[in-house]
Amino acid sequence: MSPTNKASNSSAPTQFVQTKDQKYAYRRFGAGTARPLLCLQHFTGTLDNWDPAVTDPLASEREVILFESAGLGRSSGTVPENIAGMAKHALSFLDALGLSTCDVLGFSLGGMVAQQMVIERPSIFRRMILVGTAPRGGEDIMHLEKPSLAKHLGDPSLRGYAVLQRIFFAPTDSSQAAGGAFIERLLQRTQDREPNSGPAVAKAQMTAFRDWEQFTGERFADLKTISQPALVINGIHDEMIPVRNSYWLSASLPNAVLMTYPDSGHGSLFQFHESFTRQVAAFLKSESRFAPY
Amino acid sequence: MSPTNKASNSSAPTQFVQTKDQKYAYRRFGAGTARPLLCLQHFTGTLDNWDPAVTDPLASEREVILFESAGLGRSSGTVPENIAGMAKHALSFLDALGLSTCDVLGFSLGGMVAQQMVIERPSIFRRMILVGTAPRGGEDIMHLEKPSLAKHLGDPSLRGYAVLQRIFFAPTDSSQAAGGAFIERLLQRTQDREPNSGPAVAKAQMTAFRDWEQFTGERFADLKTISQPALVINGIHDEMIPVRNSYWLSASLPNAVLMTYPDSGHGSLFQFHESFTRQVAAFLKSESRFAPY
Repeated sequence: MSPTNKASNSSAPTQFVQTKDQKYAYRRFGAGTARPLLCLQHFTGTLDNWDPAVTDPLASEREVILFESAGLGRSSGTVPENIAGMAKHALSFLDALGLSTCDVLGFSLGGMVAQQMVIERPSIFRRMILVGTAPRGGEDIMHLEKPSLAKHLGDPSLRGYAVLQRIFFAPTDSSQAAGGAFIERLLQRTQDREPNSGPAVAKAQMTAFRDWEQFTGERFADLKTISQPALVINGIHDEMIPVRNSYWLSASLPNAVLMTYPDSGHGSLFQFHESFTRQVAAFLKSESRFAPY
Repeated sequence: MSPTNKASNSSAPTQFVQTKDQKYAYRRFGAGTARPLLCLQHFTGTLDNWDPAVTDPLASEREVILFESAGLGRSSGTVPENIAGMAKHALSFLDALGLSTCDVLGFSLGGMVAQQMVIERPSIFRRMILVGTAPRGGEDIMHLEKPSLAKHLGDPSLRGYAVLQRIFFAPTDSSQAAGGAFIERLLQRTQDREPNSGPAVAKAQMTAFRDWEQFTGERFADLKTISQPALVINGIHDEMIPVRNSYWLSASLPNAVLMTYPDSGHGSLFQFHESFTRQVAAFLKSESRFAPY
């Protein structure tokens, strides 16, 4: 690893914590007086999928903690087939670190895990940021068989990160250019990288998405019990988890601000990383009991 | 008027400008290096309905210009029965002031006028803020006959500002308390006030709302021609112009950020005036060609 004085996901060492049942990989970097920020990752994403342009500015005022859930990267175990199982791993991880209070940023799949964690253990979490995600009972969650996504995933000329660029960003020159820059930033980390996720990870997480679309009783009722201030963010042209899921989140959470970004898809936080980190920092800095900041 | 050193809508003198056809009342206060901010008002609202908690912080970095359209307050003429007619008055006013560039903040009816002005004269406007408003072809725009609104408007125990508090704010203790504070702020101005609007104003503006709900051709196509960065803001429980109209605005405008506020109705900008003025100031300060700030 190249030596650096700056806290960055491009250079922070991967660490490990052992619980009774599992070994979890994670990265923890940055410093400051604010609460630590737990970051929960998207479908098949590892620690290496966190954009340093998102994590690093946030690490200037707090510790940023990137969590690798069971069955991903160098964490042990297998991927649960529902969100509750993933939330259980993340809570065990927080307990293993001895963290009794933090803020949480969940992106996509990670946003679902964040909601579940806040419902199960509200005392730990002060503020939450939910990006490109959906409530339980949401719709059109990660249907990779849709033509708009399948055309990229099935394109033999696209591989690896090139696919990510197409499906995370809108089909405009400006959004695709932002996607290219995002991919370059992910590649800044050249050593101590996590192994890529295989088909077993994708299959189990996809099962969890299908389960998350189901609900019993009153739709979105769980959200009404979440009193934490929330910031909900979505790209307006998100094909992977469409923005109407964020409309439902912000209408049902009693204390949420919604922000949507133009000209962007699922990866809006990476495309508008300067705005995103500025907005998140301002939201986290607020001590109001109300979400508006 | 009580002397004050601070630019405020509670104390700024009402001024008048004469055009070939009309005399327009307005207030212009504040100073700074940023472009002037033209503010366009809601249904039946006069210059006295601008909350000083919204106008005054914005006046610390720029001139704030509050416009009284034809047929309202001490402006001459009659209220047009469509938005295009109102936009014509506002453009004549800008021409009379000799303003060739500005930003615009349109609230409710004023947001519709702002859209029309930007479409007709795009060269004047740099950035636009659209609050609690709707695109042409929007739905459920100011249907005061709806039970949720009619119950307050027809309540004999409520008069004047007490009605405004009910219909501009959500039916929660916190939102109603914010409404009470808003009304108190409107009453800080004790001299040089505008006459209240009568039934003729309401009738003509209501005709304009009904016309604005109609559209021909592709729905929301006009919005796609607006390249200006836009900030769209709405209270999540707005009964007067429901939030789905802001969803359409931000999805159809090519360069718009949407922000919604929790626990609030049509008057979300007054309820969360500290957040609102901070967000608007940051948005206006940006020199990016993209709306995210």
